Amino acid sequence: MVTHLTRRTLLTATALAAGAAAWPRAGFAAAPLANAQGPGAYRYRLGAFELTAIYDGTWFLPIDGTFVTNASGPEVNEALASAFLPPDIMPISITALLVNTGSKLVLIDTGSAGQITDTAGFLNANLGAAGVKAADIDTILISHCHADHINGLKTKDGAQVFPNAQVFVPEPEWTFWMDDGNQSRATGSVLGYFRNARRIFGDIGKEVQRFMPGEEVVPGIVSLPAYGHTPGHTAFAVQSGNQSLLVMSDTVRNPELFARNPDWQPIFDMDGALAVKTRRTMLDRAVADRMLVAAYHFPFPACGHMVKRGTGYDLVPSMWRPL
Amino acid sequence: MVTHLTRRTLLTATALAAGAAAWPRAGFAAAPLANAQGPGAYRYRLGAFELTAIYDGTWFLPIDGTFVTNASGPEVNEALASAFLPPDIMPISITALLVNTGSKLVLIDTGSAGQITDTAGFLNANLGAAGVKAADIDTILISHCHADHINGLKTKDGAQVFPNAQVFVPEPEWTFWMDDGNQSRATGSVLGYFRNARRIFGDIGKEVQRFMPGEEVVPGIVSLPAYGHTPGHTAFAVQSGNQSLLVMSDTVRNPELFARNPDWQPIFDMDGALAVKTRRTMLDRAVADRMLVAAYHFPFPACGHMVKRGTGYDLVPSMWRPL
Repeated sequence: MVTHLTRRTLLTATALAAGAAAWPRAGFAAAPLANAQGPGAYRYRLGAFELTAIYDGTWFLPIDGTFVTNASGPEVNEALASAFLPPDIMPISITALLVNTGSKLVLIDTGSAGQITDTAGFLNANLGAAGVKAADIDTILISHCHADHINGLKTKDGAQVFPNAQVFVPEPEWTFWMDDGNQSRATGSVLGYFRNARRIFGDIGKEVQRFMPGEEVVPGIVSLPAYGHTPGHTAFAVQSGNQSLLVMSDTVRNPELFARNPDWQPIFDMDGALAVKTRRTMLDRAVADRMLVAAYHFPFPACGHMVKRGTGYDLVPSMWRPL
Repeated sequence: MVTHLTRRTLLTATALAAGAAAWPRAGFAAAPLANAQGPGAYRYRLGAFELTAIYDGTWFLPIDGTFVTNASGPEVNEALASAFLPPDIMPISITALLVNTGSKLVLIDTGSAGQITDTAGFLNANLGAAGVKAADIDTILISHCHADHINGLKTKDGAQVFPNAQVFVPEPEWTFWMDDGNQSRATGSVLGYFRNARRIFGDIGKEVQRFMPGEEVVPGIVSLPAYGHTPGHTAFAVQSGNQSLLVMSDTVRNPELFARNPDWQPIFDMDGALAVKTRRTMLDRAVADRMLVAAYHFPFPACGHMVKRGTGYDLVPSMWRPL
């Protein structure tokens, strides 16, 4: 029934018809274009908990053949094309997770606060779309100290964004980034991470709680060591009743690249080999147990299930549904 | 690093720790659960046009082994399980498409208006989330006359929901459903569709514009015959500049069932064999031309690209991104 349909014939037909088409009705006032994305807040239940994925935006990072240290530029571009994404640009989607345990309102990671790119920094607006004020948040769990995870704690001017929140940082992460010797040996973007971590935590360090990955940090939220991406990079397991969610943090970034090719090492993984081992272990576990997973850089709403296919893994995104 | 992680050990750890965990901080006022999904409005650009996917909700239809006429209940449940969905329930997601051409605001199909299930009927609320009022809409294109596509035109009390919209219905669709002879031969749910179409269109029939599938209905929107699901079922191609979108309507329903198994015939397809032929032709074309597609019953935001894999097709959902 659609044998005539090709892009070429469609465009030709439109070009021919556009001038001649007589609009059958008096013109209405043209509606203005919105020029903005709709709210990014996706809610789901986990036992008695209510979770909300909060979209912060997407950082469109220009890349060259060095972005994945053990794959070529053409291989990376082929993986991008498989997801119908343009070459040479890495879309780094950012989605934080809000967990309402019924007694505590917990935010896991905090977004970029618009301090990285103009196309991210919508976390607070989307918290608002979810009916939540920054002051409502009791607890903030930090997975690791990269800028896109911690910058949301402060405005550009250094004001605290979440005035009532207790902030938790993994002990090995804190130790690494706050060590002056480590900083003295850092260069390039890593040196930038050191400086940024001190900008964010410098005057609130005494109030920051540290925890050892493996501990239950909040009732119902167990931290999990997931080292490699950074020295203290941490995942979380959220559990309520007989339901659980594995919050993978940055263990797996864009699924079409790093779940499909779990051995690929992006330059952001500080210990690439260890990150691969952690990634494979976690993905195997998620598949074996059919676990619900979330990941900070998965496409919003950044949750779903993992399946094994061939030599890699695929994300099966959660289906948007009413509560 | 996560070798200890299993669902069993996690749940056990939590059970043990929950009673003993000392919360390190004075209790804050518990935030109330929202108990509602976030807004469902996803915006994307197509040339100079601005499109918004508007989520109406999901109808969770209990099914038995007869829902797919040429596949067994266990086969259907296996397909549901592959998408991590429970057995014996067909989630019928409903997403209408709003097209702002710059001069006309066009809505393609109208949702269920809460007249089918309590878990759908959010189209107007989500139009609001997108900053659009029902009275702003100039044009409504109907793909076919099933209740979940036309009920949004009227409230339960018979009031028009879109007071300023010109409504367009495919000529063969109108002819079929308005034919008294056809109705006299109908039984069961199909008879219900006849009665419902007359309830919706009875007093506005004279104002309804009819078009022949194949015509350009609105400048930039070409209708495409896609018969089989219903006698006049229509798809649309939206085009602006050198970009195009194939709006498949109900040619493909849940992708994990009917794209993966394009020969499967759901009971909703009135001419199952013809619907399969239309579905295969359209999916082959979408794959060959790497066309952006939308479909009314795809998971919100109900747009993406199709790829061929094995004997079927997969949906690669569009990545949520800022405008």
